[in-house]
Amino acid sequence: MSYNLFGHLFKFMTWGESHGPAIGCVVDGCPPNIPLTVDDIQPFLDLRKPGTSRHTTQRREQDMVKILSGVFENEDGQQVTTGTPISLMIENMDQRSKDYGEIKNQFRPGHADFTYQSKYGIRDYRGGGRSSARETAMRVAAGGIARKIIADIKITGALVQMGELKINYDNWDDAQISQNPFFCPDAKMAKQWEDYLDGIRKAGSSIGAIIEVRASNVPVGLGAPIYAKLDQDLASAMMSINAVKSVEIGAGDHAANLTGEQNADQIRLDDQGDPIFLSNNAGGILGGISSGQDIIIRFAVKPTSSILTKRQSVDKFGKEVDILTKGRHDPCVGIRAVPVGEAMMAIVLADHLLLNRAQCG
Amino acid sequence: MSYNLFGHLFKFMTWGESHGPAIGCVVDGCPPNIPLTVDDIQPFLDLRKPGTSRHTTQRREQDMVKILSGVFENEDGQQVTTGTPISLMIENMDQRSKDYGEIKNQFRPGHADFTYQSKYGIRDYRGGGRSSARETAMRVAAGGIARKIIADIKITGALVQMGELKINYDNWDDAQISQNPFFCPDAKMAKQWEDYLDGIRKAGSSIGAIIEVRASNVPVGLGAPIYAKLDQDLASAMMSINAVKSVEIGAGDHAANLTGEQNADQIRLDDQGDPIFLSNNAGGILGGISSGQDIIIRFAVKPTSSILTKRQSVDKFGKEVDILTKGRHDPCVGIRAVPVGEAMMAIVLADHLLLNRAQCG
Amino acid sequence: MSYNLFGHLFKFMTWGESHGPAIGCVVDGCPPNIPLTVDDIQPFLDLRKPGTSRHTTQRREQDMVKILSGVFENEDGQQVTTGTPISLMIENMDQRSKDYGEIKNQFRPGHADFTYQSKYGIRDYRGGGRSSARETAMRVAAGGIARKIIADIKITGALVQMGELKINYDNWDDAQISQNPFFCPDAKMAKQWEDYLDGIRKAGSSIGAIIEVRASNVPVGLGAPIYAKLDQDLASAMMSINAVKSVEIGAGDHAANLTGEQNADQIRLDDQGDPIFLSNNAGGILGGISSGQDIIIRFAVKPTSSILTKRQSVDKFGKEVDILTKGRHDPCVGIRAVPVGEAMMAIVLADHLLLNRAQCG
Amino acid sequence: MSYNLFGHLFKFMTWGESHGPAIGCVVDGCPPNIPLTVDDIQPFLDLRKPGTSRHTTQRREQDMVKILSGVFENEDGQQVTTGTPISLMIENMDQRSKDYGEIKNQFRPGHADFTYQSKYGIRDYRGGGRSSARETAMRVAAGGIARKIIADIKITGALVQMGELKINYDNWDDAQISQNPFFCPDAKMAKQWEDYLDGIRKAGSSIGAIIEVRASNVPVGLGAPIYAKLDQDLASAMMSINAVKSVEIGAGDHAANLTGEQNADQIRLDDQGDPIFLSNNAGGILGGISSGQDIIIRFAVKPTSSILTKRQSVDKFGKEVDILTKGRHDPCVGIRAVPVGEAMMAIVLADHLLLNRAQCG
Repeated sequence: MSYNLFGHLFKFMTWGESHGPAIGCVVDGCPPNIPLTVDDIQPFLDLRKPGTSRHTTQRREQDMVKILSGVFENEDGQQVTTGTPISLMIENMDQRSKDYGEIKNQFRPGHADFTYQSKYGIRDYRGGGRSSARETAMRVAAGGIARKIIADIKITGALVQMGELKINYDNWDDAQISQNPFFCPDAKMAKQWEDYLDGIRKAGSSIGAIIEVRASNVPVGLGAPIYAKLDQDLASAMMSINAVKSVEIGAGDHAANLTGEQNADQIRLDDQGDPIFLSNNAGGILGGISSGQDIIIRFAVKPTSSILTKRQSVDKFGKEVDILTKGRHDPCVGIRAVPVGEAMMAIVLADHLLLNRAQCG
Repeated sequence: MSYNLFGHLFKFMTWGESHGPAIGCVVDGCPPNIPLTVDDIQPFLDLRKPGTSRHTTQRREQDMVKILSGVFENEDGQQVTTGTPISLMIENMDQRSKDYGEIKNQFRPGHADFTYQSKYGIRDYRGGGRSSARETAMRVAAGGIARKIIADIKITGALVQMGELKINYDNWDDAQISQNPFFCPDAKMAKQWEDYLDGIRKAGSSIGAIIEVRASNVPVGLGAPIYAKLDQDLASAMMSINAVKSVEIGAGDHAANLTGEQNADQIRLDDQGDPIFLSNNAGGILGGISSGQDIIIRFAVKPTSSILTKRQSVDKFGKEVDILTKGRHDPCVGIRAVPVGEAMMAIVLADHLLLNRAQCG
Repeated sequence: MSYNLFGHLFKFMTWGESHGPAIGCVVDGCPPNIPLTVDDIQPFLDLRKPGTSRHTTQRREQDMVKILSGVFENEDGQQVTTGTPISLMIENMDQRSKDYGEIKNQFRPGHADFTYQSKYGIRDYRGGGRSSARETAMRVAAGGIARKIIADIKITGALVQMGELKINYDNWDDAQISQNPFFCPDAKMAKQWEDYLDGIRKAGSSIGAIIEVRASNVPVGLGAPIYAKLDQDLASAMMSINAVKSVEIGAGDHAANLTGEQNADQIRLDDQGDPIFLSNNAGGILGGISSGQDIIIRFAVKPTSSILTKRQSVDKFGKEVDILTKGRHDPCVGIRAVPVGEAMMAIVLADHLLLNRAQCG
Repeated sequence: MSYNLFGHLFKFMTWGESHGPAIGCVVDGCPPNIPLTVDDIQPFLDLRKPGTSRHTTQRREQDMVKILSGVFENEDGQQVTTGTPISLMIENMDQRSKDYGEIKNQFRPGHADFTYQSKYGIRDYRGGGRSSARETAMRVAAGGIARKIIADIKITGALVQMGELKINYDNWDDAQISQNPFFCPDAKMAKQWEDYLDGIRKAGSSIGAIIEVRASNVPVGLGAPIYAKLDQDLASAMMSINAVKSVEIGAGDHAANLTGEQNADQIRLDDQGDPIFLSNNAGGILGGISSGQDIIIRFAVKPTSSILTKRQSVDKFGKEVDILTKGRHDPCVGIRAVPVGEAMMAIVLADHLLLNRAQCG
């Protein structure tokens, strides 16, 4: 969790700019002998890739990933990890040659243009360069590997709010998530969003969203006090995703409204004599350590800053300008953040599985 | 940000249990020649220490900090940092000798008892041991040092919500914060909270809260993409505080409700020709890098789990029990989290000031 | 291995100055449920402490260590580690009040005075401050804990050369090491050194030495390519000890003289069908990973720079001065480096045991 | 310095196997606005690449490096670093399709075959896979970038010993180093080595060597006590290079033979009133911090383990075998280690320049 590297033991370092020749990452610390081919990774990239419906950017990227190192055939002729770094790369295909004249010198409101330029004195302005959400493709790729380490854990990401429109949790059906272009678990709301987002898109506008990611079948004991708490590392993971403005665990900010009586997740024994919690305000984490309950995390994604309406800004030369961002942008960038959130959940859990094994055997 | 260590360059490692002989921390990476005595640290500890009003725990701890290393007299006879590790220690005074018989074997709902025991197979159950919020005293102490590094930055923490009762932002007055036992910037709400919390306390209950921390006069350029984003590190810092369940930057989860037009913080030039932002939905951070606007972060603290009402739970031996936690507990632990949140803000900013200086000179 | 912190997973951070109120360290990442009391640590400190014979400094330090956190009584009433940070502290007893007038402003040749002053613009000149070898007491203390993690591994440190006088390896007898004040495995050489070092001491001079540390019964597989190689981390560990000027693994620099035929440690099978190596030029490490052979490392320690003969130097004011260091110094500081080298070996092996368990289960 | 990542602030992570599709590294933490093209890196790779003379392996690798990210055109049309990660890649050209039948199952003595297989349960046996010295090409590449950060520092690497044949330091002439295929600063010795190494090569044997790397014009103050000492990090850097068995700073293990009087580098003032050292036993580092003197480090490289003479070993199935390694191997792998040693020196110094700037401004 330092610069372009994330993770304690299961680590990955990403590189690349939106319109450079390629993007990639190196995954370090993966256990050996885990079967791994491109087919373990590509499906997740396909969920994130642009252009899967009219509701996401129409940029054409196939996002085909290559594995350049760290795998080898075992005795059985199966390709497995070798315990050495796994280099993943995606070549950028859709680098439209175009005139970047204005973007080059102007600071788009809500974008990182101003801060990158101020910090570094230079920036790759093409498509947002390093600050583009294109970087998240590599998180999804690394997440594909992490999932193999925590094969017993089920991770479910979903869009639970778009603009003011929230799903009805009573309608939650995991099976629905893949049945609409929004990763929406509530079939009714998915319908509503369709019209709603068409309106947003046609207006050249954009809208925010909230994503929820759940992990079930998590072993008790993941997380390391005090400064590698599981919720802390999850918050760090989610907040590092482009455009994320908040992170909540379990009851989240609603916990502020609760009394101690309401908040305490009481415990009873199930038929096997194992402890079961009667509620999950904790979001599956107590004292920074997983309790065995479902881990539940939500994060809010701001609306895409690239819109067709003019906004006031300044340029590099200290002149006031009005900016309108043409191009192929996501009307609700939160949609494509769902597989990214799932990937970060997988990465943090895999990392903590190794950390826990290290200390507690 | 690994185990009991927080920070990249300005780092601190904490140690100690609630009822052990002492708690402490070692601050590493502090620049040399910064004037530093106990008086730079103690006032902040005094704000966090228990027993300052009837609204906090009546445990008696003076929390007197000692500096054991890392400072020395300079030419002018002033005590300054030497660039070597600064060891801080607080001896625990109020370790009431008592029978821990039940707590020893029972898992208090909402506490870390169950997860610590499951993970480590052992736990120091006295006062919560390592999982006690007592650890946060050392964050406040380390924060006192961090503040000296970022002397030009003003940090303001406040309680903005207790239970359902939110402050009116229009009434915000920094001067009020020190005038009531709640760090409340809204004088009217402070009055209301007084009665409200008296009721909670007398009922042996507890209540959650939301804290807001602002930093103003922050230089542009702090934060390092992609995995040491300033908002990411702040989220990590705040989520690592005991009982915190959510973290928001700027517009926070309200960003989900906004359109791109509403969300974009437009920019104009001020009289000096410097860029000024017309709003601050970003919370002072764009692309993970500070923009020069005020950094605004909020976090929710759940209600203290130690309450006088019986809650259902289980014990170590797999038996169902009902637990009622006697003792001297905070009816709203969020109050004392205010100086902790300020400290973590100071620590993250000091750390990133050094990081930025390293890379960008 | 960053600033005042050493280790990947089993980590310790040291603090304190030679003549400050105390020195200490915090050990983080120790597995839980390991029996640990002061008695597991103190004996090693006693081997390192000054004044055990006329051949070491006569400074009076009992070096009594206290454990301030991280241990607790288990069910059986035994004090064990809890998996939380273990804080160790030694109060400095022998802080002779004296006039530091000259040392304060002068740069003793061979000491860190000049570089600390130049780097930090200030230094605690009393007894060398932070740069004093007194810091190594905390390595020995942390090493005492590390030894409990690698209880099956035997670590043997010895002095193998003092000045030009090298031991005869044919005379090596582990049992001799504790029978003389030099940790010398060669009884004959120990005798010779006695007279030799008396001469050095009486002349107010000092002399260098070479220490060898061996670890036997090391499991195969410790070490992580490429940048956490076991030999790399051992080299880092040993080179970080005060006054160390070289580190060798196995054949060490003699490997330069060997042909491939001579150097290759051939392998046969023993009676049980397990591989045995016919020589150990590798020093127990191949490709950065332990092979199961004894790990053998040697390091050279320069002579104490504090001598009674005047040496030319300069002072803080840019004036040439002649310096003679009075006081109670080690005529051969290499002697007391033996338990320090053992401790660092234990720490690196414990760390890599955890690392290996994390990745390879 | 953890797994496949080296460095504190200026970091690089390497990936790739000897006979995989490519090798590469990602350099993170590089300051922005440093002019950087392939031409800044390729010349150093050319010095390391195989087949430059009959004295190195005849494997055909052009080692052409590509920069895939982290650079961009500045206002002046010059390609400069942007402060984001720099991805470097070299495609492997000479992956001869061949039958690896025996190597696949046998453990070559002196190689990492046995330990990789034991640790990971699998290994890429083709050309040594990840344990091949081919990885060092990426160090040289990363070193090319590091050199740009420390442009004022001159780094000089040389071979100073091959087998028993040592150079005469009185003959040292920097200009000679590029005039012979050995990086030998002593023209006479270079001649001798030519015949000597021809003999070794024709016998199908190999021989060890010692490399010396010097850095001059190093600013005072680089290095951070206690566990990021400059000599410690250099030792770590050099010991991580394949086949290195010892590291010495300054007087190195000869320091064991010296008295305090002999060892102390006395200081006088030069004509400008600046301190000058009268000798350099310290190797330019005091207390872990650079003194401004030349930094001098030496390391021994063992002979290539791949030789044409049969050696005894075992195979994966627990059977004794005799192994003879055919192929195109370096008779003295120490030669090509010279540019690698230089690169690691540059990397450590660049890293510490940033670290020092962070803490001491």
